Formats: sequence, C-alpha cells, structure tokens
Amino acid sequence: MNVEIITVGDEILIGQIIDTNSAYIAEQLNLTGFSVYQKTSVSDNRKHIIENIDRAFTTSDIIIITGGLGPTSDDITKQVLAEYFGASSMVIHEPSLEIIKSLMHRLNIPLSETNIQQAELPDCCIPILNRNGTAPAMWFERNGKVLVAMPGVPFEMKAILKDVIPMLGKYFKLNNVYHKTLLTYGIPESMLAEQIKTWENNLPAYLHLAYLPNPESGVRLRLSAYNADDKDLMIKEIDSLFNDLRKILKTAVYGENNDNLALSAGKLLQQKAATLATAESCTGGRIATMITANAGSSKYFAGSVIAYSNAVKTNMLGVNIGDIERYGAVSEQVVRQMAQGVRIALNSDYAVATSGIAGPDGGTAEKPVGSVWIAAATPRKVVAQKYILSTLRDVNISRASAIALNMLRLELLNEE
Amino acid sequence: MNVEIITVGDEILIGQIIDTNSAYIAEQLNLTGFSVYQKTSVSDNRKHIIENIDRAFTTSDIIIITGGLGPTSDDITKQVLAEYFGASSMVIHEPSLEIIKSLMHRLNIPLSETNIQQAELPDCCIPILNRNGTAPAMWFERNGKVLVAMPGVPFEMKAILKDVIPMLGKYFKLNNVYHKTLLTYGIPESMLAEQIKTWENNLPAYLHLAYLPNPESGVRLRLSAYNADDKDLMIKEIDSLFNDLRKILKTAVYGENNDNLALSAGKLLQQKAATLATAESCTGGRIATMITANAGSSKYFAGSVIAYSNAVKTNMLGVNIGDIERYGAVSEQVVRQMAQGVRIALNSDYAVATSGIAGPDGGTAEKPVGSVWIAAATPRKVVAQKYILSTLRDVNISRASAIALNMLRLELLNEE
Repeated sequence: MNVEIITVGDEILIGQIIDTNSAYIAEQLNLTGFSVYQKTSVSDNRKHIIENIDRAFTTSDIIIITGGLGPTSDDITKQVLAEYFGASSMVIHEPSLEIIKSLMHRLNIPLSETNIQQAELPDCCIPILNRNGTAPAMWFERNGKVLVAMPGVPFEMKAILKDVIPMLGKYFKLNNVYHKTLLTYGIPESMLAEQIKTWENNLPAYLHLAYLPNPESGVRLRLSAYNADDKDLMIKEIDSLFNDLRKILKTAVYGENNDNLALSAGKLLQQKAATLATAESCTGGRIATMITANAGSSKYFAGSVIAYSNAVKTNMLGVNIGDIERYGAVSEQVVRQMAQGVRIALNSDYAVATSGIAGPDGGTAEKPVGSVWIAAATPRKVVAQKYILSTLRDVNISRASAIALNMLRLELLNEE
Repeated sequence: MNVEIITVGDEILIGQIIDTNSAYIAEQLNLTGFSVYQKTSVSDNRKHIIENIDRAFTTSDIIIITGGLGPTSDDITKQVLAEYFGASSMVIHEPSLEIIKSLMHRLNIPLSETNIQQAELPDCCIPILNRNGTAPAMWFERNGKVLVAMPGVPFEMKAILKDVIPMLGKYFKLNNVYHKTLLTYGIPESMLAEQIKTWENNLPAYLHLAYLPNPESGVRLRLSAYNADDKDLMIKEIDSLFNDLRKILKTAVYGENNDNLALSAGKLLQQKAATLATAESCTGGRIATMITANAGSSKYFAGSVIAYSNAVKTNMLGVNIGDIERYGAVSEQVVRQMAQGVRIALNSDYAVATSGIAGPDGGTAEKPVGSVWIAAATPRKVVAQKYILSTLRDVNISRASAIALNMLRLELLNEE
C-alpha cells in the first residue's frame, strides 16, 4: 500500500524551515505497515499542488498533505482541495469551532473573524479534530483512494496523525512490513562494511540491509522485510541475525531502533543505581540536553555545570587556576579536573567533561579549531582523550557530545 | 532559473532520518538567486531515480541530487547516473583518491578496496572534490542543463556546495531574487495577521508576504521579490516597509533573517558589556545550548548550572531547602531563587532560570505536565511567570527555553 507525502509551503522550498513533518509521518506509517513511495515539497501554488495530487494518485493510494492550512493569505491548501474534490460549499465544523474558542480563551485572545474561518471546511471532507491548534485536518476520498490534509505545525500534526493512522488502517488492508535497526558507534561505515561482509552476503534474499551513517549517532544498520509470509518466523530470524551481528561488532553496538547514546548510558547507570553529572565547556550544554531529552533521565542525571568561562571552571569545579594558565583551558589537565570536579561538586558517581575550541574563532597552530579534550570520571578513575574534529562549530559540538557519551558508556561496560 | 532537489535514500522514505540537506541547499540557492521549484525524496531504486530525473529536467534547468553515493551495496546513485548520462567507463579520479588516502591515514585505518572504489567516477562527469569524506561529487551536463550529485552526509555536502554554487553561477544567468525576513516572538499568527492587516493590504504587488510560524522561534514575516527591475530600489523599499512594520509590532520584533532569540539577547548583553548565566531544571541545558550555538557567545555567556536534582538546586544555587519542601521545585519561590542563585554563583550580571514538569510523567492535578515557572534576574530585580505549555516533553523543553530567552530580551530592552 503506497503512500505519498506532499508538504506544501514556500518556506520549505526556500529552505527557511527544515521539513521534519514528513520524516515523522513516514516513520509512523512504516511502523504501521504502509510504505512511503515518494516525498514531495511544493510551493503554495494552486497549479503545482493540483499537478502533484494528480501524479501522486497514479502511484499511491494514500496522499498525506501537510501545510498551507493557516489563517493567512499565503495559505491556500484548503481552497485548492475544496476545488479539487468538488465541494459545493464551505461549512462551519462546530466541534472545531469549539476548540478554537477554548484555545483563544486560554490564551486570553478575543475570537476573531479569521479564527472562525479556520473552522470552515469543504462539505465533501470528513473533518478530523485538531485539539492543539486552529486548523482542523480533512479526510477526502476518491475512487477508493484517500487524501488527508493536516496543518504543518509539527506538534499539532503529530497529535492528529495518532487519529489518522487507525482510520487508514480501517480503510486499507496493510502490508506485512517489518524493520529492525541495530545502532553502532565508533566504527566508520566503510570499515563496518568490511567487518560484516560475510554476514551481509549470507542474508536471506527477502531481507534488505541499509547502512544509515550519522556523525552524531554512528552507523545504524537496518534490516527490512516486505511482504514476509510468516511474520513471527521473520521476527525470530531477524533477531537471530542481529545476535550474530552483536557478536561481530561487540561493544560498538549500543542499542536498537529508537535508542540513543544518552539513553544507552542511562540504562547502564540505572542498572548500577548510579548517577551522572556533566561539566561542559565547548559543548555548551549539548550533552545535558541529549541526556534530558529522554523521559525518566531525572532518575540518574544529577545535573551539569556549563563552565564557559575560566572563572566558572575554577570556582564551581575546583580546576587549578595555575593549570589553566600553564596548559590552557583546552588541555588534558583541565578536562580531567573538570570531570572529577563536577563529580565531587554534584555528588554523582560518574561524570563526563569537555573542553575544546568549537570555532569558528579561537584556533591556534598548536590547537586548531576542532581540538577537543574529552574525559570520563568513574568512582575508580578518570580517562581522557584528545580529538581533532572539524572546522565547523555545530559539527564539533555534536560530535564531541556523542564521543563523551560513548566514552562513558564504554567505561560503564568495561566495569561489568 | 528553476532548480529541483532530489534526495535519494530509503532511510528518508521510512523516516529514519530527517532530510536537513534539502533545506540547506534550497536556502543557499535562493540566496544566490536560483528558485527551487520542487523537492523530491525517492528510494534507492534505479527506475524511481531515473523517472524523477526525467521529470525534473522538464520543469528545471538544474537538478541537485544528494545521497546514495556511499560505499555500501544499497547506494546506487553513482551507477544510475553513469548509465543515465551514457558513461563509457569508470575512471579513478586521482585527486579524490589522494583525499581518501589522507583521510584513512588520519583515522589510522588501512586503505581498503572499497575506499579506492569511492574514487572511481563515470568518465562523462566533471569531478568535484569532497575534502571531508570519501565520496566525490559529480557534475553532469545535457542540452544546456546541469545535474550535480553530492554525498548525503550533511557537513560533507555543505562544504562541496560552496564550490558548486559559483560553478552554477558561471554556467547560468541568475534571476534577481531577494528575500528579507523580520523575526517576531510572542504574538500568535492569527493575531499578528490582524495587527498588520492594513500594512499587508498596502504592499506593492511585486512583493510576496509569507508568515512562517514556529513554536520555538515565533512568527517570521518574509517579504520576497522576484525579477525586480531595480534591485537597489527594491531593497530600499523593503527596508522602509520593514521599518513601518517595526513601528507596529514594537518589541515583538527581535531580529532579521538568520538572527535567533539567543543571539538577539546576546547582542543586547554585549551592548551593556554584561554577562549571562542560566539555571535550568526542566530545560536540561537547552537554553545554554541555544546560547552557545552562536559563535562568539563566550563574550557574554559565563555558563550554567543544570540543576536536575533538588540537591544541586540547594548546594550549587543556594535554593532554600524549606522552600522546595513547602512550595515544590516547580514554584515561583524556587525559580526566583534559582535565577538569583546562579547570577551570584557564576558572578554574572543577568540570569534566567526554569523549573517545570517536562513530562510525560510527574504531572499532578495541581501542576499538570507542561507547567513551567520561568524567571529572569537582572542587577536590579527578578521577574517570574508561570506557563502551562503542552503535554509533549520536547515541545515543553523548547518552548520554555524560547520563553526564557525572550523574557531576558524584554528585560534588557525595558532597561534602555
């Protein structure tokens, strides 16, 4: 059952926003057993939208559109769909109007004519409530095919999609699709490919392997099965293949599916009933952000000291001021004291620390932009290592953060 | 001059990665004067790739492809392009091989057969160096139109694009395109639309206004001009229109184009030669991450205490333990003490603090998930306000962070 996702909006085509919606929709549809054939982004232009709906209906049974449902003049998706599906009038959808009224009331904003117009929908659609915003979603049918239009605001769309997917499940018969992903960190893609060549060559023909490299999360290895006859058997076979892969890749494997490095380290900490703190200079809070993005992280995460200035390094973390003067803030001596210092100051069992030159300025011949010292402190020791990452600030921040979390994870594993 | 961006990769269609490349490419092309007609994501499938190249060449003069150039078996873009453009053989591109050798040397990895194959390119393309990775980019020409294929790893692609854009500029004559964006925070889209209705209705016909709402960065208002006769006159007119808009929207305007809330607050701090610290509970380091994402933030940012546990709130920030017991960690009393406490502990002039229930767990009837107290401390006073945001953890973290930075910005403005 093919799906096409169409995102509407000039802001996507001029690159002012990153389209995160279509990835989320694709992921949720895939988990349910739909396959996304194509994703297309088009402008707020009647002809361009209609052409793409026509084209997408030739390859797919389902079209999901997001965007262009706002209250302003550049948003035309609702009018275009009313025309496309031959609506005879626009009608107020009372339950949606009630939601709009209560949203405005909560925000202390008087109800405007524009707000009311948001509740007007083509009479040929099935309205779908948007509980978190003013633009309701719409479900259209034609010749056994379905088009669903949702607003482009990501958290509104996500909540609506929870209702849409079961509706699609009822309407269509689903494929037997299954994906499982093994997450690895620390082995470059080409080296990984060589290490698992034999395993890969022996994969059964109905399974498709994909390498998904990402500098922040390592290389993910995904096995996909489409239209397997016996789903239980297939799941067992994939599990068994991944067990073989774990034996080859050992501690480079940090998790499955939606795990992340911070969560994997967090699970190991929880097994030890231990706590973690971070002392961040060049990563500027990114490690803490990655840890606290995971629900339940308060069980093992005490907190951080973001020591951007040297004064904070000495006053809050007890780094020796003479060592900063002698070796520089970006040095093994300082990063070790930061890790040990935050562990003591925040009374945690483990700690990680970073000190580096994120760039674009501040590099020297001896310590170029991208030079980062990373340390991990355990109850028994402190380890530290130097990296030269890249010339790009955001790359340096995200890579150093991932390396720090992986260093911690490996220390936790080594203790076992 | 139309461009189509095609991103290749099953991982995009199943939603395992968010396509950030196409937004970046679109932004850079637009700044240079190209317009992106459509963005399409297709699978690692020969037929699907070829169909889309054929189609894109009917609407556009330039096709930019990313992805599918990796060393592994699922990556087929290079082979498909060799076939499409009628290559007679694959030849080693020596300068690319040199880069691959030095990359492997730096990583201490022996050169493999797979690595060498990465330097093999169709003989009908103009190779473009990839200085940061193993897959070179390729430039193909046909009937006065151009296709450029780049690897999908974002930082590799970004560096290559810096070389590609001037090449495109030489090859094609460019449109006279200009965009300018005014950034606002704190006024919902529909209310904003009503406030600026008269201004909007009086816009000259050659200008196109777009509303770009984002919960984290507010509503951006973008004026675009295509094919203006006199570019200097147009820039002057847009500047004058935005000046009128600033008078209507006052302090809700926080910047232009690529500014962000943290940077705007940072500029105000620099004008006062003042410093900032943050004390973050529920935002978990996100505010610090937003601040330190900006190069040069070390000039005004001292650091943070991420006080996830109550012990850190009392020990590091001096929050009264009795107040935590009496009012709870999510309370006006505690958040005010956090802001003042971090200002004193880190010896900064200003501070912001957050304490809330990010969710999904931890909510109560009195303090549901999404309840957040936010405070800003200045040398003269502390202000604090409560918000009930959403039921979603990531939304709560990002919104609370943006609100805190905006609260600081407004306090800095009010002092002037």
